[in-house]
Amino acid sequence: MTVLSDLLAAVFERGLGAARQGDWSRRPLEELADALISTQGQTSGHLLAEQVLARFNSADDAARIAFFHHLAEHMNVDPAAARAALNAYEGTPSRATYRAFLAASEPPRQELIRRLNQIEGATGALVAMRADLLRLGQGVPELEALDLDFRHLFKSWFNRGFLVLRPITWQTPADILEKIIAYEAVHTIDSWEDLRRRVQPEDRRCFAFFHPAMPDEPLIFVEVALTRGIPGAVQPLLAEGRAALAAPEADTAVFYSISNCQAGLAGISFGNSLIKQVATDLAAELPRLARFVTLSPIPGLMEWLKGAGIALTDADLPALAAHYLLNVKRRAAAPRDPVARFHLGNGAIVHALHAGADLSQKGRAQSGGVMVNYLYDLRRTAERHEAFATDGTIAASPAVKSLAASAQPMLKGALDGEPTV
Amino acid sequence: MTVLSDLLAAVFERGLGAARQGDWSRRPLEELADALISTQGQTSGHLLAEQVLARFNSADDAARIAFFHHLAEHMNVDPAAARAALNAYEGTPSRATYRAFLAASEPPRQELIRRLNQIEGATGALVAMRADLLRLGQGVPELEALDLDFRHLFKSWFNRGFLVLRPITWQTPADILEKIIAYEAVHTIDSWEDLRRRVQPEDRRCFAFFHPAMPDEPLIFVEVALTRGIPGAVQPLLAEGRAALAAPEADTAVFYSISNCQAGLAGISFGNSLIKQVATDLAAELPRLARFVTLSPIPGLMEWLKGAGIALTDADLPALAAHYLLNVKRRAAAPRDPVARFHLGNGAIVHALHAGADLSQKGRAQSGGVMVNYLYDLRRTAERHEAFATDGTIAASPAVKSLAASAQPMLKGALDGEPTV
Amino acid sequence: MTVLSDLLAAVFERGLGAARQGDWSRRPLEELADALISTQGQTSGHLLAEQVLARFNSADDAARIAFFHHLAEHMNVDPAAARAALNAYEGTPSRATYRAFLAASEPPRQELIRRLNQIEGATGALVAMRADLLRLGQGVPELEALDLDFRHLFKSWFNRGFLVLRPITWQTPADILEKIIAYEAVHTIDSWEDLRRRVQPEDRRCFAFFHPAMPDEPLIFVEVALTRGIPGAVQPLLAEGRAALAAPEADTAVFYSISNCQAGLAGISFGNSLIKQVATDLAAELPRLARFVTLSPIPGLMEWLKGAGIALTDADLPALAAHYLLNVKRRAAAPRDPVARFHLGNGAIVHALHAGADLSQKGRAQSGGVMVNYLYDLRRTAERHEAFATDGTIAASPAVKSLAASAQPMLKGALDGEPTV
Amino acid sequence: MTVLSDLLAAVFERGLGAARQGDWSRRPLEELADALISTQGQTSGHLLAEQVLARFNSADDAARIAFFHHLAEHMNVDPAAARAALNAYEGTPSRATYRAFLAASEPPRQELIRRLNQIEGATGALVAMRADLLRLGQGVPELEALDLDFRHLFKSWFNRGFLVLRPITWQTPADILEKIIAYEAVHTIDSWEDLRRRVQPEDRRCFAFFHPAMPDEPLIFVEVALTRGIPGAVQPLLAEGRAALAAPEADTAVFYSISNCQAGLAGISFGNSLIKQVATDLAAELPRLARFVTLSPIPGLMEWLKGAGIALTDADLPALAAHYLLNVKRRAAAPRDPVARFHLGNGAIVHALHAGADLSQKGRAQSGGVMVNYLYDLRRTAERHEAFATDGTIAASPAVKSLAASAQPMLKGALDGEPTV
Repeated sequence: MTVLSDLLAAVFERGLGAARQGDWSRRPLEELADALISTQGQTSGHLLAEQVLARFNSADDAARIAFFHHLAEHMNVDPAAARAALNAYEGTPSRATYRAFLAASEPPRQELIRRLNQIEGATGALVAMRADLLRLGQGVPELEALDLDFRHLFKSWFNRGFLVLRPITWQTPADILEKIIAYEAVHTIDSWEDLRRRVQPEDRRCFAFFHPAMPDEPLIFVEVALTRGIPGAVQPLLAEGRAALAAPEADTAVFYSISNCQAGLAGISFGNSLIKQVATDLAAELPRLARFVTLSPIPGLMEWLKGAGIALTDADLPALAAHYLLNVKRRAAAPRDPVARFHLGNGAIVHALHAGADLSQKGRAQSGGVMVNYLYDLRRTAERHEAFATDGTIAASPAVKSLAASAQPMLKGALDGEPTV
Repeated sequence: MTVLSDLLAAVFERGLGAARQGDWSRRPLEELADALISTQGQTSGHLLAEQVLARFNSADDAARIAFFHHLAEHMNVDPAAARAALNAYEGTPSRATYRAFLAASEPPRQELIRRLNQIEGATGALVAMRADLLRLGQGVPELEALDLDFRHLFKSWFNRGFLVLRPITWQTPADILEKIIAYEAVHTIDSWEDLRRRVQPEDRRCFAFFHPAMPDEPLIFVEVALTRGIPGAVQPLLAEGRAALAAPEADTAVFYSISNCQAGLAGISFGNSLIKQVATDLAAELPRLARFVTLSPIPGLMEWLKGAGIALTDADLPALAAHYLLNVKRRAAAPRDPVARFHLGNGAIVHALHAGADLSQKGRAQSGGVMVNYLYDLRRTAERHEAFATDGTIAASPAVKSLAASAQPMLKGALDGEPTV
Repeated sequence: MTVLSDLLAAVFERGLGAARQGDWSRRPLEELADALISTQGQTSGHLLAEQVLARFNSADDAARIAFFHHLAEHMNVDPAAARAALNAYEGTPSRATYRAFLAASEPPRQELIRRLNQIEGATGALVAMRADLLRLGQGVPELEALDLDFRHLFKSWFNRGFLVLRPITWQTPADILEKIIAYEAVHTIDSWEDLRRRVQPEDRRCFAFFHPAMPDEPLIFVEVALTRGIPGAVQPLLAEGRAALAAPEADTAVFYSISNCQAGLAGISFGNSLIKQVATDLAAELPRLARFVTLSPIPGLMEWLKGAGIALTDADLPALAAHYLLNVKRRAAAPRDPVARFHLGNGAIVHALHAGADLSQKGRAQSGGVMVNYLYDLRRTAERHEAFATDGTIAASPAVKSLAASAQPMLKGALDGEPTV
Repeated sequence: MTVLSDLLAAVFERGLGAARQGDWSRRPLEELADALISTQGQTSGHLLAEQVLARFNSADDAARIAFFHHLAEHMNVDPAAARAALNAYEGTPSRATYRAFLAASEPPRQELIRRLNQIEGATGALVAMRADLLRLGQGVPELEALDLDFRHLFKSWFNRGFLVLRPITWQTPADILEKIIAYEAVHTIDSWEDLRRRVQPEDRRCFAFFHPAMPDEPLIFVEVALTRGIPGAVQPLLAEGRAALAAPEADTAVFYSISNCQAGLAGISFGNSLIKQVATDLAAELPRLARFVTLSPIPGLMEWLKGAGIALTDADLPALAAHYLLNVKRRAAAPRDPVARFHLGNGAIVHALHAGADLSQKGRAQSGGVMVNYLYDLRRTAERHEAFATDGTIAASPAVKSLAASAQPMLKGALDGEPTV
């Protein structure tokens, strides 16, 4: 690689002239971006793309914000031009007028992002760039608008058809395993030994989606426990010194942790595909598997209880949790709890609730230790998804429904209006 | 795989109901496409995408044309809506108005194509679909416009950053080699033995670009001969019983054939990147390589001579060819010869001309057997590309220039106007 | 690789001195072998091993015979030394006397062969060397004895535990596929298209054993047809334009061709392991497979009939074939037919006979077109193998037994003594 | 794999009969071994081999010792039979008498070990078995003799031609990396972070030999630091927070740790091949590398000084170390220091000595913190190896020689005779 990059350096240096090279290093990042948008040359395009990404990478936050504003303001769509092209196309539809309309209605920054993506390793750099944009642009309308262009392109690039599912095991390269440790967002992995307990025993599995242009970067991963029966607590699943079950003996696959890895891919949803694919693959491998469930946190429970002014006792918590999951909505009739929104949106049902199921500090703080099993019945997820998407119907087991009903007396003092926020 | 697809079939069948399944198979392809555009569900989306692609695949040309017209007419941009969204955004720029504008100014068929691409193997199917569109839609304005949407998305999906360069050797899987045989467009490969002569000897190389979502389908490939000196004829390069040169002895790499493989990727250019990458890699591997040249056909020479009414003798052919390459233009000051446009556009120069260089029937018919070496000086390709792109400057060696000058007397009788067509 | 071998050349040249190098190239191959046996140095050992193999490779048959005689006569075991060491060990058993005995009772040529094997690619070269020895040494007692040393070492090196089973498909590299074409010994593969018909359809499979030190050289391969029912003729299996069966529909796996690839591995048996492994793997992949049979030639049938002076009519052939397989023995009570010996020795039974089953010229010449199914019942192969190995019991289906009995009248005129040869 | 082994279990169970299976589990390990030696059947052979290895694996030390004694005593060579076969061969040399002699002079336990090796995973199990034998058989003459048979076969199986060199990096699977941590024998790796510092920076490399039949088990590995100049201390090489050198800038490759991984491969030497191969590969990759040196411990220095009764001061230590390495011998004129024997035997020279070079507790205890650079001049290693092997010549730099000479005054009081032990 060294010889190669030396060679390339030499090639480009001489090809484009030392003077011009010198120019570039003195010119602002924004000018390089403008040059990249306007060049016709593929070679100079590659070189400019490399420069822009390298310069952005070494820039501080202030310079990055300036760069984003440049994109937002100087590479925005031109309404007058777009309107003229639209009129021309409407008047005389043809390949030429349609081409002009497509060009005029797309902001040039989309083409800039595509051109930046032409060099090796650029996809990961652009995902990191969007993570910066989300962090630095929050509350700034034009930067929030700019984000839509990144998101639009990323949806196309990170299409399900391009993703690759790979098992994560104790045979996985260490550089990927250390990212699993770093990215685990639900139940912290506190050491390599902890990681080993989650990927090495034959009744523990882990799977991740990867994109071919970012082969060392997991996009999302799920951790699975193979069990007999549905577990009602998470700490035993992660315990040291646990005896492993022979995988073919398992009747239940428990998705006990799902973590998105890339802040720069926020809003590009992979979780549904991941769960369906993993469930399908496990079902094919292990014919005795009869159930696919989660063991999930209820991150918003305690906050809601507090906001609603509901006094609680430990004994009542599962009932209140059932009510919270089934009846407490935010706008658009969606459940207030984000994890519930995710699994119900995938076509799962609320299957069971467990007190004392997550005794970690975080678990107690979020939900008083209560956890929930969402159950995926693969034969009915499509139908349930449709009902949820169309009417907001929340499917639940009879047990959970009656548990929720039992919470009514406790809600008397709840503040009005809260449930729909 | 069989178990898996059985399982999936079972899952979907029961999940969505046999009745509904039955419905689908009776409903027209266009309705399925409409349903795919409007569904919110990922699972039903996948199923619909599978159905649409399968149905399109088994449809006849008439049905395909009808489908394309449906996309062209019912999934087109709505000018009124686009105008309203544009006005709203211009009046009150915000994330919300910008999002609405992006949505309204993009024709729904782009989202349809993206959704079709969510299932495994879809990318190749969509490339094949566009090949049909190009074939069936020629001369039909709305279908030619529709093609721009495919092209727009393909440019994004087949971004250089996503492509993978792989050497093609005698160790390459047979299913890929047979595609090389089928796709060779310049000098036909007439048997497996002929193929072997192009990929097995150590002084013969072949490289192709692949896309991760179409791992068995080369997109474009180049065949290279490593030689001492610049060759002036192609048949000796491909001869049986030839003694191979030790690769490190070579001082010249000859790109003697470049073939695009996918009709459905017309207009998405890979050749420039391929040549630059291969040249760079070979330079790193073989330090004695001093020159990168092509041995190229001149496909339009005889046709131009005939059209221009120029009488010719064999002796004069190279001079006329030099004139043709350097001075005969079509609109926009670009060379009339398509191969010349490609290499000059990449920053190469016209280096030398050879009579009797391609004695095949095709070679004689196209150019009276004359071939040309374009030379890539990697240190100067960027600069030359810029000059060509900006001013139409055609770089040539002094020998070729004086050869072209020597053709002037023969052009006296040439028909007016021809040279600029 | 070039840089590397250049470097190594430089290293060795200077390290060992040009003078000495020069010496070597002038000295006879036999002296180099003697030097290799006596050197203590690993580096000089490698260099010498390389020289010996290269020199042998470029030697003519006369020189190869001379080299083999050198090994046979000058690197043979020394009876006096072996006897002395044996006496010493018997008198005073200890690690030291045992070590001396092991050393003295092993001929030095075994150590020579091991030392030759220390360089990359040597294993294949040694297998080729033994092929020469078998060819050139036939009938020469000391060379036939020498062969036992090669065989002894090869049995150890080509141990089942070191072999790797790999499927051969249309995705297999072309350089391996062309060896399959070349090595097919039962039903000739006459083109790449013929090969494709045997490896590409989903109801056709091929598997080969490989050794890690010869990764591009199949050792043995078997071709399998997945069918419904047991086929009674081979040409339909190999026919062009045949409609393929969906693999999961098959109830029978037919081993219709097994070929050893390496003449130099004669006497090292892989076939039994290969059939058992392939049958086990296919059974795991395709649960509906209920039968594993061969469709085998009867290579010695016509020759035996002729030798025994039996007049025949086509109608009688299957009966005579049944008799031949079940009752005609050579020494040691083993069946006269070599293919029968192989499959019965593996624990198969003679299941059925078919007239007109191989209409090729070879098939008619060998067996008048008759073929036989041997059936592998995996649950009983071990038991049947034991009975065959212990008592020479030949298992056959009732139908085959009564067919054989029906041949008795035709045997009246058979020459005495023949049946037991 | 589970389905497969279930299937095999079923196959074998039924094939061989439950009664007989039951027999086996009740019969002693020794009887199973006897059966394995005498069976003619490949299938029953595999099954028996599996049983023997499984039973040995779960046996306690007493049972293992008994098993080893069985091999040593009942599967030993039979002197009378060997003598008779030797006489017969000497009297009438032929393939038949030679075959009989080879059979009679090889102890049956060698065939047993080969047969055990026919099943998957057996090679690793046999290496572990020999580790037990070395541990349990020490001082027992017949078990020490038995070990020679294992060693004989292992030399053949672990032939250099079968080994594969693989780089160990931060991309290596975690299950292999944890073995590197466990097997490091020179400078303990105390955590995954410590490991990362040795394999991830671009100026740190690690390489291991693997055998194809034990793909997850390194046999030996070497750790390399790329530096500018020859380092004189080891702790800085392993320090946290160290700035890495760009690999192409390095002029020196330092082999600072070599560890054998498999106790059961004692006496099968890989180190020389490993160092030569790694040096050759690094030289090809990094053309500026000018020197290959070690930074080695001197494990026997302090012990010798103590034994020899030499009073010492820190200032004198390097001189005494130089004398120790150059002049203190054990039997057969070989250096007393084992690390010196290894590197000098490979053709290296004693290049330089450093006080305070290893400040770890172990380093101080072994050698008072002194370390030594052995230098490999690839152009001269062969020649130096020969001189060392033939005459015991120890090559050293002039500086080391004069340092050793300066130690003479301090040796006055040394105990007689010690230097040659």
